Amino acid sequence: MPRARFRHLAREIAEIGKGFYSRGWAFGTSGNLSAVVERDPLLLAITASGLDKSRLGPSQILGIDADEEVSFGRGKPSSEAAIHVAIVRGRSAGAVFHTHSIWSTVLSERHAREGGLKLEGYEMLKGLENVRSHEHSEWLPILDNSQDLKKLSREVADLLERQPGIHGLLLRGHGLYTWGASPREAKRHVEIFEFLMEVLARSGTRSDTG
Amino acid sequence: MPRARFRHLAREIAEIGKGFYSRGWAFGTSGNLSAVVERDPLLLAITASGLDKSRLGPSQILGIDADEEVSFGRGKPSSEAAIHVAIVRGRSAGAVFHTHSIWSTVLSERHAREGGLKLEGYEMLKGLENVRSHEHSEWLPILDNSQDLKKLSREVADLLERQPGIHGLLLRGHGLYTWGASPREAKRHVEIFEFLMEVLARSGTRSDTG
Amino acid sequence: MPRARFRHLAREIAEIGKGFYSRGWAFGTSGNLSAVVERDPLLLAITASGLDKSRLGPSQILGIDADEEVSFGRGKPSSEAAIHVAIVRGRSAGAVFHTHSIWSTVLSERHAREGGLKLEGYEMLKGLENVRSHEHSEWLPILDNSQDLKKLSREVADLLERQPGIHGLLLRGHGLYTWGASPREAKRHVEIFEFLMEVLARSGTRSDTG
Amino acid sequence: MPRARFRHLAREIAEIGKGFYSRGWAFGTSGNLSAVVERDPLLLAITASGLDKSRLGPSQILGIDADEEVSFGRGKPSSEAAIHVAIVRGRSAGAVFHTHSIWSTVLSERHAREGGLKLEGYEMLKGLENVRSHEHSEWLPILDNSQDLKKLSREVADLLERQPGIHGLLLRGHGLYTWGASPREAKRHVEIFEFLMEVLARSGTRSDTG
Repeated sequence: MPRARFRHLAREIAEIGKGFYSRGWAFGTSGNLSAVVERDPLLLAITASGLDKSRLGPSQILGIDADEEVSFGRGKPSSEAAIHVAIVRGRSAGAVFHTHSIWSTVLSERHAREGGLKLEGYEMLKGLENVRSHEHSEWLPILDNSQDLKKLSREVADLLERQPGIHGLLLRGHGLYTWGASPREAKRHVEIFEFLMEVLARSGTRSDTG
Repeated sequence: MPRARFRHLAREIAEIGKGFYSRGWAFGTSGNLSAVVERDPLLLAITASGLDKSRLGPSQILGIDADEEVSFGRGKPSSEAAIHVAIVRGRSAGAVFHTHSIWSTVLSERHAREGGLKLEGYEMLKGLENVRSHEHSEWLPILDNSQDLKKLSREVADLLERQPGIHGLLLRGHGLYTWGASPREAKRHVEIFEFLMEVLARSGTRSDTG
Repeated sequence: MPRARFRHLAREIAEIGKGFYSRGWAFGTSGNLSAVVERDPLLLAITASGLDKSRLGPSQILGIDADEEVSFGRGKPSSEAAIHVAIVRGRSAGAVFHTHSIWSTVLSERHAREGGLKLEGYEMLKGLENVRSHEHSEWLPILDNSQDLKKLSREVADLLERQPGIHGLLLRGHGLYTWGASPREAKRHVEIFEFLMEVLARSGTRSDTG
Repeated sequence: MPRARFRHLAREIAEIGKGFYSRGWAFGTSGNLSAVVERDPLLLAITASGLDKSRLGPSQILGIDADEEVSFGRGKPSSEAAIHVAIVRGRSAGAVFHTHSIWSTVLSERHAREGGLKLEGYEMLKGLENVRSHEHSEWLPILDNSQDLKKLSREVADLLERQPGIHGLLLRGHGLYTWGASPREAKRHVEIFEFLMEVLARSGTRSDTG
């Protein structure tokens, strides 16, 4: 049963990951995707480390537990698996996607001093789960980047606790993390944030300090 | 007979909708498309609510009447169906398309105070029905966005009555509505407006108050 | 024999035209392509008028003579056929392509007063026929747009006579004409000019008056 | 044996080259790709001269030696083969890729006076071989362009000796050269540099003098 569900999710996130590559959101070997196969104990389907996303296939998705031990598939899980686990737990998310786009990189530097950026007044915000009106103000926080993934995943966990309403976060000079109940919802959130960040950047305006 | 025509139009608008997604004009679950199957009484083929347009297929197109009751297919029609109905009636349009692009969002905010934007002097304007020369001035009005779709659809109906020459309209921070005698004509109008808005935005000039 | 060559060229320019559409260089029904089947008397394969280039196929290519009379295929030739004929004669070109891109539209307005724009110092210039070094200065003239195609085609013919070294020209607010000995060469010239115009526009510099 | 390896590499670099074309990094007939079949004596698989990369296939890849003599395939090797050979030797590279993008052209002019541009602080830098942290400063040198390929290839060889840490270089007004142990690694480096150059250009900041 978990194996069948793992296979299904592996196919789904591999297809979504190739789509992100084609948009230019996962160049190099950047970006990683995960989806929850079983929650207790945690079994997480996640992209292996160092993959060219233009060729992403289900065989490159691993099954790991909360300690990043591999139970399904061969290979090393993404080095950022600890962040995925932190989000799955902090948000009861069913899928966590991380992309590296031009605009998220540019804006995460431009708004670093304010600690985040505000997205408000756009109809597209209604694509974020539980947002019902364009008259919504979404705060997208920015965390400093770090190579200490344990430290970074604790900071992510803390942020999720302090700011329960957020739908995503930026790592400075690095990229976007967003999540959803399912891979489809997390994909939708990636598209919403990427769209709104490009709008913000091209509008030539800066968000106010949140 | 209406069923055969419904199927034909459902295939056509599903294909066009996927094309819009690939251009980045229908991210998240944004955008909706409709085409008139029968005019009296009205039978409208329209995208269901909340669809990922990257996978849009004919089975996701519903048949509704003027009261948004579903007669063909399963699902909830797009929440903006009332605007489609208003345009079908106000313009005798055969197809109504609504897209959410980066540039329409940016420009609808930038020109909100003037209530619209002027597109003039471009050869591409001749792609709009009944425009015969680049020496044409097209006014693209901007309405404030609202979550009250009944109110918004009445405002659209009023606008179409007051400004009989327009080929499209923007909702502020939201996107473009345009229409045509057929899905092909409405698709052409989407491409023309998207092209001209990008030209306007990249030209670094602002349209005068219309 | 001419029919076989017509069919071959029709397939080739239809394929190239679809590629231009996918780049966003032939939105709406804009853009037209022609290739010489026979030179004396002239038999020109040319796109029919009003086509959606996303679906361009060989059956939509017509054979016309120098008076724009249709000898192969059904339909109305592109309204700009006279310009194609002028270029075929003025340059002994084997193919003439006309595209409507964002950047050619923007730059044709920005540089209208100078009557053209200068492209110099770029390696990519070597993609233009007979250019051997990046130390080349290419003048891309801009003509005012007009709906009087006879007048416009005479102006194009005059320009080609006065400026024998040019590889293309812009119509203001309208788009690019370029040509080559073959469809492949004309396609290469479209790509070179589109590339260099985007570089010029994004460099934030203006060309000097030529 | 070398023939089988040649065929394998020819297929691989042809596929990668078509991908570069689709991104707009190899318009006209620009760009060239090579991969080492055998190192001693050198047998290099390299794109032939003057190819439209939209149709790149394995039959258009030649096998040459260090003197650019063709041993496999028919045609003239890329005129920039001497630079490929210089990089293969100076870096023991297994693959060398050269692309012409909008952003590399724009930035190679904008930063010409400083002799290069600095990329630092970005997570994406970790996609460059042996870079372990975003806290890395990558210097991307810019050489003046020249049509004297022998001279230029000596300048490249000298540069590689003087600056052993670099992963790529720009030719002014021309494009990017980067390399890797394998075609996959060189492809990754192209994507990393293209991504970071676009980020730099869109950030509206200039790198400091290195």
